[in-house]
Amino acid sequence: MESCLFCKIVEGTEPSEKILETGSFLVIGNKYPVAPVHVLVLSKVHHEKSKTLFGEPTGFWDEMFQAIGKTVKKLNLHKTGYKLVNNGAGYNHFEHEHTHILGGSKKEPGGKT
Amino acid sequence: MESCLFCKIVEGTEPSEKILETGSFLVIGNKYPVAPVHVLVLSKVHHEKSKTLFGEPTGFWDEMFQAIGKTVKKLNLHKTGYKLVNNGAGYNHFEHEHTHILGGSKKEPGGKT
Repeated sequence: MESCLFCKIVEGTEPSEKILETGSFLVIGNKYPVAPVHVLVLSKVHHEKSKTLFGEPTGFWDEMFQAIGKTVKKLNLHKTGYKLVNNGAGYNHFEHEHTHILGGSKKEPGGKT
Repeated sequence: MESCLFCKIVEGTEPSEKILETGSFLVIGNKYPVAPVHVLVLSKVHHEKSKTLFGEPTGFWDEMFQAIGKTVKKLNLHKTGYKLVNNGAGYNHFEHEHTHILGGSKKEPGGKT
């Protein structure tokens, strides 16, 4: 999508700190971290949040969580703790589907759940 | 698993506020909510967090997110905002795989991401 920042990052026309890449997903550092470790898992194809959560299963989330698992291991968060956050319907800033991975702190970062 | 609270809730030997049920998942109210809306999406089968995030794709997360999507719609959070949280490797309290759904507040509940 032409106006989507995450699409530009995937295309490489906007810079990003690449952490990891799988067939369908790109993992980048968050420019405005709220925890010692804060990365974003983006689908390479522009999928709108309003569709990924409410349609029929397509394998999308299984692939997303495989990318998340690989990232958690790469960043050693499987030993120190990870918090996955996915916002939507107004709490999010970008409609392009993505999940936050937070970690690197002794206690759960952000609000306690 | 005998000693697992979430297994007891799934079996019905521990009480819970049932919100929704799908083939493989049960959605219940969180006893200690940290947001106006705070529910838990539990797999009916006891899956350990250390396995669900790091193995090969099995359809597990696609099914989990289908249950999440249905719950978000049922609770009207697709109009007011939803925050999904999944903790692991020490940030979590229970190893039985589950995801939090938070909502019901104007701004993103808990820590901002």
